Amino acid sequence: MVNEKMMEKLKKLATLIRYYILIMTTYAGSGHPTSSLSGTELMACLLFGGIFRFDVDHPKSPNNDRLIFSKGHASPLFYALWTAAGELSEEDLLTYRKFGSPLEGHPTVSFRYVEAATGSLGQGLSIGVGMALNAKYIDKLPYRTYVLLGDSEMAEGSQWESMQIAAHYKLNNLIGILDVNRLGQRGETMYGWDIEAYEKRISSFGWKTIVLDGHSISGIFAAYEETLHVTDQPVMLIGKTIKGKGVSFIENKNGWHGKVLSKEECDRALKELGEIDKSVRGEISLPEDLRPKEPTPQKPLKKIDYPADKPVATRKAYGNALVRIFPQFPNMVSLDGEVSNSTYSEIFKETYPERFFEMYIAEQNMVGAALGLSRRGKIPFVSTFAAFFTRAFDQIRMSQYSDPNIKFVGSHAGVSIGEDGPSQMGLEDIAMFRAILNSVVLYPSDAISTERLVEEAAKHHGLVYIRTTRKETSIVYRPEEEFPIGGSKVLRRSDKDIATVIGAGVTLHEALEAYEALRKEGIFIRVIDLYSIKPIDERTLREAAQATKGIVTVEDHYAEGGIGEAVMSALATSRAPVYSLAVKKKPKSGKPQELLDYENISQIGIVRKVKELI
Amino acid sequence: MVNEKMMEKLKKLATLIRYYILIMTTYAGSGHPTSSLSGTELMACLLFGGIFRFDVDHPKSPNNDRLIFSKGHASPLFYALWTAAGELSEEDLLTYRKFGSPLEGHPTVSFRYVEAATGSLGQGLSIGVGMALNAKYIDKLPYRTYVLLGDSEMAEGSQWESMQIAAHYKLNNLIGILDVNRLGQRGETMYGWDIEAYEKRISSFGWKTIVLDGHSISGIFAAYEETLHVTDQPVMLIGKTIKGKGVSFIENKNGWHGKVLSKEECDRALKELGEIDKSVRGEISLPEDLRPKEPTPQKPLKKIDYPADKPVATRKAYGNALVRIFPQFPNMVSLDGEVSNSTYSEIFKETYPERFFEMYIAEQNMVGAALGLSRRGKIPFVSTFAAFFTRAFDQIRMSQYSDPNIKFVGSHAGVSIGEDGPSQMGLEDIAMFRAILNSVVLYPSDAISTERLVEEAAKHHGLVYIRTTRKETSIVYRPEEEFPIGGSKVLRRSDKDIATVIGAGVTLHEALEAYEALRKEGIFIRVIDLYSIKPIDERTLREAAQATKGIVTVEDHYAEGGIGEAVMSALATSRAPVYSLAVKKKPKSGKPQELLDYENISQIGIVRKVKELI
Repeated sequence: MVNEKMMEKLKKLATLIRYYILIMTTYAGSGHPTSSLSGTELMACLLFGGIFRFDVDHPKSPNNDRLIFSKGHASPLFYALWTAAGELSEEDLLTYRKFGSPLEGHPTVSFRYVEAATGSLGQGLSIGVGMALNAKYIDKLPYRTYVLLGDSEMAEGSQWESMQIAAHYKLNNLIGILDVNRLGQRGETMYGWDIEAYEKRISSFGWKTIVLDGHSISGIFAAYEETLHVTDQPVMLIGKTIKGKGVSFIENKNGWHGKVLSKEECDRALKELGEIDKSVRGEISLPEDLRPKEPTPQKPLKKIDYPADKPVATRKAYGNALVRIFPQFPNMVSLDGEVSNSTYSEIFKETYPERFFEMYIAEQNMVGAALGLSRRGKIPFVSTFAAFFTRAFDQIRMSQYSDPNIKFVGSHAGVSIGEDGPSQMGLEDIAMFRAILNSVVLYPSDAISTERLVEEAAKHHGLVYIRTTRKETSIVYRPEEEFPIGGSKVLRRSDKDIATVIGAGVTLHEALEAYEALRKEGIFIRVIDLYSIKPIDERTLREAAQATKGIVTVEDHYAEGGIGEAVMSALATSRAPVYSLAVKKKPKSGKPQELLDYENISQIGIVRKVKELI
Repeated sequence: MVNEKMMEKLKKLATLIRYYILIMTTYAGSGHPTSSLSGTELMACLLFGGIFRFDVDHPKSPNNDRLIFSKGHASPLFYALWTAAGELSEEDLLTYRKFGSPLEGHPTVSFRYVEAATGSLGQGLSIGVGMALNAKYIDKLPYRTYVLLGDSEMAEGSQWESMQIAAHYKLNNLIGILDVNRLGQRGETMYGWDIEAYEKRISSFGWKTIVLDGHSISGIFAAYEETLHVTDQPVMLIGKTIKGKGVSFIENKNGWHGKVLSKEECDRALKELGEIDKSVRGEISLPEDLRPKEPTPQKPLKKIDYPADKPVATRKAYGNALVRIFPQFPNMVSLDGEVSNSTYSEIFKETYPERFFEMYIAEQNMVGAALGLSRRGKIPFVSTFAAFFTRAFDQIRMSQYSDPNIKFVGSHAGVSIGEDGPSQMGLEDIAMFRAILNSVVLYPSDAISTERLVEEAAKHHGLVYIRTTRKETSIVYRPEEEFPIGGSKVLRRSDKDIATVIGAGVTLHEALEAYEALRKEGIFIRVIDLYSIKPIDERTLREAAQATKGIVTVEDHYAEGGIGEAVMSALATSRAPVYSLAVKKKPKSGKPQELLDYENISQIGIVRKVKELI
């Protein structure tokens, strides 16, 4: 229980935090003070009441408890907390939302105490799931992960994905704190202050729920203490709170979301706060100083070994590659969205079951959890059908602001999957992943290049996408071939090349067939395997553009944002004509080859286009 | 209650349906027979037991009940049902999954009884929400919407978004049928046959639940009859079923998802089915012949009227436009994701509250519901922040296979939103929407062009994206100006133009400023407003490319898949150099102009680039 002295101190701290929230938002002229004021006691008690354990001098310490503001717009509260902890000055706070300040409008990892960027709602809990999975199943450390949630964002389906997976994995080290302040951006939330509605739903998803008054320090304390004794369930504190709490004229009033007080209103509000003790400082408890053993990278156990004459699906080579390289990258984990027998991550699961997490058909949470794992030093390989990554585009997009180290692997790319039809065809995935800043987009064409590119992906710190193919493709390369990120392979070249055909994945094989067909007619083409779509091998492309009459790109993907446009972009100032063969008609069910022909991206289409260029 | 005769007939029909499922999948060599067999009684009773009302000769009749297979992989069951109804022949079934057949691997609207394409899981219920909203609140018709759901797909957060919204809008005309066959693709689902887990969760979300044996015809009947008496809640039938039901050697066995029986196995299975009465035909009840009044389009009530000297945010003009054009497009509805006071759909809401649906912060369901409304003849305008449409990319992607007529409107595009920071900035939205087949992507730069483009969007049958801007922009056009889809505006041109600068939205204004700055130095540029990014005005771009030394594109969006690449694509074979100015550094919080400068997409960057070209 909290003693009277602590109670007094926490009250002072709450007042100080409110003071910070108000001055920083009024000074900035924008921000979300009311959404910050509602969560003040919930957070002050957590951080400064001895619950939260964190070494402020070593924010990256593996022993620290983690705190994620899923309601990222409450960033003023977050920054105010760290100011109350003595880690920021009042002067720092006045840089809030200014260009170059680490105190951005919504939290980003520019500020050293932010675990992951938030601001698109409904994502913090999944990041927390990743961190809690890491603590419980991988690092086996006692740190706990706390996530502050808004009530509006409970409408996001992603929350319920996280909720079910957290319960499934019995993440008792994951604590949600739901700040039910009743009001969303433009009015009341779906449930207002119907706390029971939240309680029923959350407990039905397998969580322990604790309902409390979110402004009662003693109540909050009791709740946090209760969470410490839960052994097999995640816990949700459901706090009834008042938006704008502490400032009478904005308390529980609609129309005050994302709105700041004027200078005069702020002065009036500060008076209402009463005495502000600027000398009080919140103390955060230190965690135990445990030293988890860092695993030592070893050489791969196996060699790459595929018979040169036996076709292998690149998705299968992906599974093999994971197993092969794990000793070298012992921080790897594999996550899959209930399709491990299609993506072939099941090969990894069979060998390293303790490093594999079944995430079921809930891609948003899977990607969020991968970010959480990545932020805790793991290298997540996340696999599902290429098409289904679109389900998590917002999470993928947001991850780019958290210095991610995640490898996305999408199988079943393109019309070449055949009979299953368009719903299962990844046709926008290259466009999606290319549009992420500093992303790497790789597309192997055979088992060997897959093995190598999986290795390159693991080596590279950053967000990488690897596109694999459902159908078997023949072996193109020798096992010792290297595939650096940003490279390409010129597979056919001569002095007589009249055009350059650029393929990748399944279309590379079509390009090689077109080469043979044309060669028989005495027509020579250069064939390039663009296995690295981003970054792209500009030099090789430019050389080819200069040496031949035109470039033909061919891809099993829609034209926009795909390989064709990547090549056009690389050659945009080189005056080389680029002809794009891509999926341009509504795809349907059929045999893979029928569909490649129908879309004009098979060797027939390539031959036709090359002949047009003569 | 079902009488004995009906019971006998339904048993025969179920056997016949199983026969169809088995022969069509074995013949096709791929498909999902086991997932179809589990739902056979649930669907046979619905369609042929007098519950479902549907005029088979007029599948588009507004009076028809609607049936959506959210578990789209059970398409063999769907096609078998319509065969049992006499609407397909056994011969037709043998075209299943063949190129050109309307009976695709997963249902698409090529088959006339498919309400919407499915196959990416967790989307059918939201489409159903749209159809049920239409029945209850717009058309005010008694038709009911049935959605067959798989248990695996209940892991998708989108389901819970739909669930909560359906309860919120008291959609008692929406009936979910959950086929709990325990097994997912690669093993058991998260809850297996724990029916209570589903029951608790679904009822906590405000649904009436009815638990039943999914193979008991009398039980199923009783359940459907019960649904008819529910007045203020959606209803979920939770059926415990057996995957592969009816074929002993595949019943309830793992490893049989998406796997078909060999010819021999199929013969063995057919024997197990016992006598197959191919003469039995399921009869579907006719709906009442109601004639809902089609609203008559009228001329817009207001004129476009903005003072030429007063800047207006295009997002605000969007709200105004909705109100202005509604009389002309009386099938319009507006959906918003709890940000109507930011997107300004609230202007429409205030005037036409009965045509506005608050969809809360649940973008996936919002987009799915929009598709449902579109399939029922409405023209949904769906608005949220541009960035947050990424949350629904899978739903957007899937909608393209359902002949959609949806208008997406994304506000807060680009770094020019300023202080809120990267999480709120739409920087991938153009790439995302361009990658959709036959999509239209529009980007107005002032209030006038916004008004016109909203009108064009409403006129155009198809998927349209309109990008609006947070900050106010000055008026560029006169009210009578036309903005056809696929056009562009050459705003500055002379015989001395040395370069062409292409902007849109906020960057058009930067381009115009750059023009002024350069003109003062005696340097002339052509300035094009590329308000229609897709389709793109190739002719004007080619003319500009020929007339000037180079093209400079400038966009408040990441480089990949954006305006630059759209222009490169249009000019790919024209040998014109294209220089892309785009967001290429990690954005942050700051003032809009600071950020435009930082990203080199303001007039400063344009002037610099043009001078480099001289």
